[in-house]
Amino acid sequence: MTEIPVRKNERIDDLQNGFFIIQDPAKFCFGMDAVLLSGFASVNKGERVLDLGTGTGIIPVLLSSRTEGEHFTGIEIQEDCAEMAERSVRLNQLEDRVTIIPGDLKNTAELFAPGSFEVVTSNPPYMIGNHGLENRDMPKAIARHEICCSLEDVIKSAAYVLSNKGRFYMVHRPFRLVEIFGVLRKYRLEPKRMQLVYPYADREPNMVLIEARKEGNPYLRVDKPLIVYERPGVYTKSVLEYYHDDELSGENKK
Amino acid sequence: MTEIPVRKNERIDDLQNGFFIIQDPAKFCFGMDAVLLSGFASVNKGERVLDLGTGTGIIPVLLSSRTEGEHFTGIEIQEDCAEMAERSVRLNQLEDRVTIIPGDLKNTAELFAPGSFEVVTSNPPYMIGNHGLENRDMPKAIARHEICCSLEDVIKSAAYVLSNKGRFYMVHRPFRLVEIFGVLRKYRLEPKRMQLVYPYADREPNMVLIEARKEGNPYLRVDKPLIVYERPGVYTKSVLEYYHDDELSGENKK
Repeated sequence: MTEIPVRKNERIDDLQNGFFIIQDPAKFCFGMDAVLLSGFASVNKGERVLDLGTGTGIIPVLLSSRTEGEHFTGIEIQEDCAEMAERSVRLNQLEDRVTIIPGDLKNTAELFAPGSFEVVTSNPPYMIGNHGLENRDMPKAIARHEICCSLEDVIKSAAYVLSNKGRFYMVHRPFRLVEIFGVLRKYRLEPKRMQLVYPYADREPNMVLIEARKEGNPYLRVDKPLIVYERPGVYTKSVLEYYHDDELSGENKK
Repeated sequence: MTEIPVRKNERIDDLQNGFFIIQDPAKFCFGMDAVLLSGFASVNKGERVLDLGTGTGIIPVLLSSRTEGEHFTGIEIQEDCAEMAERSVRLNQLEDRVTIIPGDLKNTAELFAPGSFEVVTSNPPYMIGNHGLENRDMPKAIARHEICCSLEDVIKSAAYVLSNKGRFYMVHRPFRLVEIFGVLRKYRLEPKRMQLVYPYADREPNMVLIEARKEGNPYLRVDKPLIVYERPGVYTKSVLEYYHDDELSGENKK
């Protein structure tokens, strides 16, 4: 077995399901949003999955661990991040099922044939523009703000690579829901399912999980509310189900 | 004081806030949706309010009872229903503040000047088309199905009569949310606030409350979940707040 190098500042996080992710806290660590999206997404046996802006590779690694999808590809624009994700793939001996590609998700037409995936996932940057950012090149800024790609870039690329009736799963912020629905429809990805994530039962939601279907018929199913905490520090049963025994440390916040 | 006639089959429902509504159970009785919409809507002192498809007149009556709006107008296409609502207005001695107009909401351009209301409310028919309906002329069918007006008719009329930055409040079904947002934006009514109504904390939502603003800037605030029942027959505190002490009988279901 090959030794997988772990660089200075990096750490190995145990996903508690037999899998591990290498992260660098100075750059960007995956959050609950990526884990919830992995739980929300359905991948059937034999399907091919593309994750747009994969970061640490958390979504392909989690989906490969709990589904029978045939192959999982993650594309990541930040080269050092893609290289780190690729080491996580090797660390988990997932080279046969997971591929990390360093590259720009805006260039999917150069990288993939149209319709070559049944499922696309994405946990894209949430914030519009880059106001107030001191350093636009910082990995955290790129992961959080629309510096390298806009919402429309993500959706356009998803629509291009998806097969007919293919599914797109995305996590985003509720305040952009109107725009999200509008852009999805523009690219013929019909929103079919939505779940709002409320930190507590009496708080406003801070995340929304969306499933859209290429060339789908209009009918949105809104799921029961996903409430994260029973009380401070104690997850609800619903969230633990989404974690699928991948109970992660509370430090991993986006 | 004039005697208000109550016809055969009609009943007078006590709203428990000093106001009463005449209803005919064989036709159509208002539901929790109208009451929640009245609680969700904000009306400031001096504002003029139009309710599109007012039915029994429940929304103007409730809003006149709990806000300082200057005047409330309800338009209703079913003449006997409008006449009954008008009797409810007289029964409550609200003639100075509430006017019921028999008429088609699609004709707002003939009835009102553009921009003549600061607030528009509507609890429109939820169901697309009229499949499976045995009698398309039945008052219940007209209230529930898009027989006399479509979602787009309602939104188009709201946009016409609203003043700049005026607010539109609507209750609808979550399965049509994508279409609702799309049509609102088409008529330059920007969705600004949304609340999903879940019958129980672990169920899918069956209503959505929406506030849109004419020529508003894009930013949707999603409220905390509105959960109706603690347990069967017992309302949650949040719903009782929306009822504003107007605790209605459990029979009044749409």
